[in-house]
Amino acid sequence: MKLKKLVLTGAAGRLGSYLREPLSKMCDELLSTDISDDIGTLYPGETFVKADIAKFDEVEPLLEGADMVVHFGAIVDERPFEEMLGPNFVGSYNVWEAGYRHGVRRVVYASSIHAVGMYPKTEFIDTEVPHRPDTFYGLAKCFTEDLGRMYWEKRQMESVHLRILSAAQVTNPRALGSWLSYDDLIQLVTRAIDTPVVGFTIAYGVSNNDRAPVDNARAAFLGYRPKDNAEQFAKEILGEAEPADPMDSGTMCHGGPFASVELGQSAVKGMGIVDDRKKT
Amino acid sequence: MKLKKLVLTGAAGRLGSYLREPLSKMCDELLSTDISDDIGTLYPGETFVKADIAKFDEVEPLLEGADMVVHFGAIVDERPFEEMLGPNFVGSYNVWEAGYRHGVRRVVYASSIHAVGMYPKTEFIDTEVPHRPDTFYGLAKCFTEDLGRMYWEKRQMESVHLRILSAAQVTNPRALGSWLSYDDLIQLVTRAIDTPVVGFTIAYGVSNNDRAPVDNARAAFLGYRPKDNAEQFAKEILGEAEPADPMDSGTMCHGGPFASVELGQSAVKGMGIVDDRKKT
Amino acid sequence: MKLKKLVLTGAAGRLGSYLREPLSKMCDELLSTDISDDIGTLYPGETFVKADIAKFDEVEPLLEGADMVVHFGAIVDERPFEEMLGPNFVGSYNVWEAGYRHGVRRVVYASSIHAVGMYPKTEFIDTEVPHRPDTFYGLAKCFTEDLGRMYWEKRQMESVHLRILSAAQVTNPRALGSWLSYDDLIQLVTRAIDTPVVGFTIAYGVSNNDRAPVDNARAAFLGYRPKDNAEQFAKEILGEAEPADPMDSGTMCHGGPFASVELGQSAVKGMGIVDDRKKT
Amino acid sequence: MKLKKLVLTGAAGRLGSYLREPLSKMCDELLSTDISDDIGTLYPGETFVKADIAKFDEVEPLLEGADMVVHFGAIVDERPFEEMLGPNFVGSYNVWEAGYRHGVRRVVYASSIHAVGMYPKTEFIDTEVPHRPDTFYGLAKCFTEDLGRMYWEKRQMESVHLRILSAAQVTNPRALGSWLSYDDLIQLVTRAIDTPVVGFTIAYGVSNNDRAPVDNARAAFLGYRPKDNAEQFAKEILGEAEPADPMDSGTMCHGGPFASVELGQSAVKGMGIVDDRKKT
Amino acid sequence: MKLKKLVLTGAAGRLGSYLREPLSKMCDELLSTDISDDIGTLYPGETFVKADIAKFDEVEPLLEGADMVVHFGAIVDERPFEEMLGPNFVGSYNVWEAGYRHGVRRVVYASSIHAVGMYPKTEFIDTEVPHRPDTFYGLAKCFTEDLGRMYWEKRQMESVHLRILSAAQVTNPRALGSWLSYDDLIQLVTRAIDTPVVGFTIAYGVSNNDRAPVDNARAAFLGYRPKDNAEQFAKEILGEAEPADPMDSGTMCHGGPFASVELGQSAVKGMGIVDDRKKT
Amino acid sequence: MKLKKLVLTGAAGRLGSYLREPLSKMCDELLSTDISDDIGTLYPGETFVKADIAKFDEVEPLLEGADMVVHFGAIVDERPFEEMLGPNFVGSYNVWEAGYRHGVRRVVYASSIHAVGMYPKTEFIDTEVPHRPDTFYGLAKCFTEDLGRMYWEKRQMESVHLRILSAAQVTNPRALGSWLSYDDLIQLVTRAIDTPVVGFTIAYGVSNNDRAPVDNARAAFLGYRPKDNAEQFAKEILGEAEPADPMDSGTMCHGGPFASVELGQSAVKGMGIVDDRKKT
Repeated sequence: MKLKKLVLTGAAGRLGSYLREPLSKMCDELLSTDISDDIGTLYPGETFVKADIAKFDEVEPLLEGADMVVHFGAIVDERPFEEMLGPNFVGSYNVWEAGYRHGVRRVVYASSIHAVGMYPKTEFIDTEVPHRPDTFYGLAKCFTEDLGRMYWEKRQMESVHLRILSAAQVTNPRALGSWLSYDDLIQLVTRAIDTPVVGFTIAYGVSNNDRAPVDNARAAFLGYRPKDNAEQFAKEILGEAEPADPMDSGTMCHGGPFASVELGQSAVKGMGIVDDRKKT
Repeated sequence: MKLKKLVLTGAAGRLGSYLREPLSKMCDELLSTDISDDIGTLYPGETFVKADIAKFDEVEPLLEGADMVVHFGAIVDERPFEEMLGPNFVGSYNVWEAGYRHGVRRVVYASSIHAVGMYPKTEFIDTEVPHRPDTFYGLAKCFTEDLGRMYWEKRQMESVHLRILSAAQVTNPRALGSWLSYDDLIQLVTRAIDTPVVGFTIAYGVSNNDRAPVDNARAAFLGYRPKDNAEQFAKEILGEAEPADPMDSGTMCHGGPFASVELGQSAVKGMGIVDDRKKT
Repeated sequence: MKLKKLVLTGAAGRLGSYLREPLSKMCDELLSTDISDDIGTLYPGETFVKADIAKFDEVEPLLEGADMVVHFGAIVDERPFEEMLGPNFVGSYNVWEAGYRHGVRRVVYASSIHAVGMYPKTEFIDTEVPHRPDTFYGLAKCFTEDLGRMYWEKRQMESVHLRILSAAQVTNPRALGSWLSYDDLIQLVTRAIDTPVVGFTIAYGVSNNDRAPVDNARAAFLGYRPKDNAEQFAKEILGEAEPADPMDSGTMCHGGPFASVELGQSAVKGMGIVDDRKKT
Repeated sequence: MKLKKLVLTGAAGRLGSYLREPLSKMCDELLSTDISDDIGTLYPGETFVKADIAKFDEVEPLLEGADMVVHFGAIVDERPFEEMLGPNFVGSYNVWEAGYRHGVRRVVYASSIHAVGMYPKTEFIDTEVPHRPDTFYGLAKCFTEDLGRMYWEKRQMESVHLRILSAAQVTNPRALGSWLSYDDLIQLVTRAIDTPVVGFTIAYGVSNNDRAPVDNARAAFLGYRPKDNAEQFAKEILGEAEPADPMDSGTMCHGGPFASVELGQSAVKGMGIVDDRKKT
Repeated sequence: MKLKKLVLTGAAGRLGSYLREPLSKMCDELLSTDISDDIGTLYPGETFVKADIAKFDEVEPLLEGADMVVHFGAIVDERPFEEMLGPNFVGSYNVWEAGYRHGVRRVVYASSIHAVGMYPKTEFIDTEVPHRPDTFYGLAKCFTEDLGRMYWEKRQMESVHLRILSAAQVTNPRALGSWLSYDDLIQLVTRAIDTPVVGFTIAYGVSNNDRAPVDNARAAFLGYRPKDNAEQFAKEILGEAEPADPMDSGTMCHGGPFASVELGQSAVKGMGIVDDRKKT
Repeated sequence: MKLKKLVLTGAAGRLGSYLREPLSKMCDELLSTDISDDIGTLYPGETFVKADIAKFDEVEPLLEGADMVVHFGAIVDERPFEEMLGPNFVGSYNVWEAGYRHGVRRVVYASSIHAVGMYPKTEFIDTEVPHRPDTFYGLAKCFTEDLGRMYWEKRQMESVHLRILSAAQVTNPRALGSWLSYDDLIQLVTRAIDTPVVGFTIAYGVSNNDRAPVDNARAAFLGYRPKDNAEQFAKEILGEAEPADPMDSGTMCHGGPFASVELGQSAVKGMGIVDDRKKT
């Protein structure tokens, strides 16, 4: 069941850069798009169109004839609500509504742990717990998940919402549990695409870490079986770690630094995330 | 514990018109606001300021010195997303953010059954079930509930979200279960204000109908005990009713007509809701 | 919404005798049937046909043109499986299958607490707990509920399953909790008929007893609000009661004597149930 | 089923003083005991023996021939662990163990909301939630409930654990939800005695307050239906109340002042509990 | 703990043919039976008796002296109710009742996913969910599970109900999740026999597929750890698959084709199940 | 994050003897203590102080300057309540209270399956099920868990409660599910120490046995991944096992022999536990 056309938003982003190649092999045509045009060399079958996801008129034509959309385009940090409204809220609406008008079958969405980031880690949260966003960033994920559920229930348009924990290098104790390797990310996106029917499904994006703190059981039928395990980094990281304050929501909650940052202020700053974008 | 200042948004609306008088008695100053200025005579202690809830700069100054906000201002029907974005989404953000900046203690919000309208009535839904919006209108309620939860968990600003079922005359079989009388509405808003602490709380707004289909147990500490019962209208209404189609989501789901209407199109049209606004 | 035609099985039975008059008023034609023809005087609009529920060919023609069937015909005690197979198992199949072929919209079925009779009373069982039958009699109720659910999910034929606790005089301590008065039975059957859509619904048939041990919350939308309360008999009955053995499943379990009787042997014998059939 | 002999511990305490008369009417002999002998005039059929519940040898002989024990004897405030160990922990063991040796059928125990006092009121807690004690006082209640469950499961000795919320005058906002009137206390103890079988059962002791924050559903079979409602005091009490701090566990948690007091220090001091002991 | 005598029904069927050899090694005597006598060469210790499971008099004598029965005899496709009544309903009763009379300790039963086939795959169903049969075939499994639970609770006769998903070659996308290999089937039956006590237990029969959609946690104590994984076939099968319709219950529900077939009509036809019976 | 000082109670016990060496490597100073001084050679960095855990004055000074306490000191068998009161109840209080006074961050406690030993194995119990102790031994574990939860919620002192199933040789069928190897014990204690924040956490101590009957999901964030599997002993042990009685709580319940032993009487006697204390 090779797909005719896939659309990837956020293609120039860090995670998007790792998805372009595998996605290009799953379809006849991969249309990559981003607000930036720093896209490098295109893969066979790939085309690129620069577009602002927040503008319906720019997004809408891209989805013509598409089977599915892999929607990773958004601001990927906490910012004031006014800044996020366009790309992270309206952008999601644009993708679903334009997709619906063009008969797109399914959206695979980069949701986030931050939709439920205020749960303490001592709760092993599954994919049906009520939302508890930790930031405006997380609130946009809640909005999009609810939107996706509605488009499924009212319009039979499918979606898979991948609540990514932390797809970055393992540089702190939290990441021992929350790490999602690029290989596992690719597997997860692939399953979200190749599973014949998904309806409305949420799945956590996390590797096979010993300390993975979330429950993917309800998404078991997707067949996502991560291979990587951050425990390989445990000895070094824990050896250097300072004693943690159990009353700090940034340590105790699933959302990590997002759970303790002031609303509207960057939570990524200082996390030491290296831009290891895949170069093409 | 008489309050110094309360702010009521949507004061010129149908429900707002019934709240003005009782709210004016609970505080030294009631500041009523609406996008319309068809407000009639003011009650003792009441002042009115016309404002567009969708504009932060218009909303913000109104909340100075307020103890609580009763937030009922919004479009109260289904419309295209673009039309609802300002008043129903951004408007909620404006109220919470402005309230936070001014030290407002609590927001009492007119949420709606349409945040969970796609559940079938054969599920007795409590206030912790995940969102299942039936319309963009419902999606805005989901957004605001999640926003309110976040402001509680990140900023300790309280809110009570009243998921009103149908606060209108009983003219069809669904309303035998979903009716919220004006007296019960007033009791519910009063409890949401006079309960000493509420944190983040959701409560269904429904009268003591025999056929009430939702579960308020988790909000029991509010002490809301509705008095009216739509069963008084049952004989007449059921006597005239046509056989219903159990496969129609508009009949089977909690959201009623909103659950079967096309997204973006009015669900209220044809429901025969009389504008029985309380005149002052 | 007056119904054209209702069919009542088990019309000559004890409970059936109380249902004939109210049902006859809800429809143009009430077709009563039973394996016995001891039916007395017919009510206006009522006709009677003697038939063996266990024989498809006898049941099938009766349902022609019917809107709904109220299915109370069965052996109402524990007996060897071989004796119950026809009336209590095959009989249910016959009603649903014949109903389906004739376009019947809904079956209202006399199920029983004995479908879940092995739960201890210290569990407040709702209508979604897995089956735990206490007798072959209860097993037939399980079978019929599962059958009804399947006809709903595969064929969109509705049913309401009334798990009656004990519709008989209050003569022992168990009945203080389990009593269903005839008036409340009539209300319950009426709601099961006049509720516009029901899908597949289970409801416990019990009066408003202080000691009622079961949870009807999921069926709340039916609007069943029983009026009678067996507590009026408590003083006399408890005054005479012997100390009970907490290890006896007949005392501790919801099923009462059925929970302790040997499979296949009468559990009604010795319960002192008076045949107070309503005479016409 | 009049009982031969009942034993009441804590008979000279505030709650005990209200129970002596009704208990004396339910049995041939009521043996009242307390560490204090300030017992006043005895009721017909009542005898009194002074005893220290913490001493097995003093308790044990009292239970000879008893059908049931109503165990209310304990320190009823928070104190250092060392002080509570004897009366509140060992005392409970003494009652159950001595009862077992004498063939006592059932213990009715004054447990407390403080066994679960750290739950926030926004959780409507039922009687199966895990323990979350707020004080050593509450911890003793947890200990006794677990002990009672074990004696039921290992030795078939029944018990009912009455988690009393606040059986005192309504003098603050919390009590609007937590009040247990003396009449309702008597009804609750009566049901715990006259229900034929109870196994191991927990029930909350709270009146029919509009704002009652706990769920007695699992104990429904006891038939406890409280009559009093603290809402009669709401207007006056809320009118005088200061704004509350939602981050204060003493306001937000079920345990009230016990939830915020330092372990080992009196939580009752300053609550204004009047000693309105029933005089005989 | 080698068993003296095991009885295997359905021994000439496809699954039975794989069980005969391993079962023959677990006991002194394996009595195999089937309505067909196409049984091939017997294994050491095996005897064969042709019998119709629907006839009590043919089944009953076979169970004399048996420790356990492995009950796989039934029609293994959907057929009209009248055809299934004997072998699939009455047959189960015959096995349990005859077993009870002969003191058989345990029945290991070939139940099926079709007892709960109407659940959507987006629900990760455990072994305690209420029944939702998809066919008369599934309804017979529900009946037998309830029967087995009753024989355990009333008569202390144990049973394990193996809800087999699809024990056939992997030829379609559904089977990537539902496949049960013959080796894993044998392991599962072995555990159901060798576990010292089982009471009443349900376990899903599925291999260690990446996409296995059901939850065996409650049966964990059996120690069933499947080894095979259908993912080895994924690439080829998904490559050839047509896009699926998410609104088709045959695709979306656990029951697969059984969930969409008309009641009473073969669901196996066209599934391409090869008769790879093990030849002896 | 090497710790400065760890305290190990019960250091001369069977499990303690295996913990001393690994613990000594995790900190600058390991202070081992026991009521027995049969401690053998000390490890580098280890000191030993003989003390009676039941005496506050002996325990208190040991905890000065400690980061964490690993609390394994207790009677490890069932005994009369009076004998257990000191070491198993008061001893726990002493550790927590002394720890609190000295600013100890965390207690890692040897809890036990016997806190929930009366659950049948057919329930896959997680770490949030209510207590169901099987012995006074188990009751002390319940007491300590509740105590630990209170110190966390009232005083922000962390604890991890390891509900050990059976850390002894595999000599009977129950141990095929309940075995905890010494290596896995060490891993579990290590995780309980090196996880940055734990709040109040319960985890089952069991190896990666095929037949492990308990659910550690809620403690997933600890990253405990046991390596050993008792299934290696299954063939031999099951081959020799006698048929078991499913009505015997000692066979059917998680607590094993503790679930059937008379309260106060040794349950370990006759279990064939070899004292394979690690010699130093």
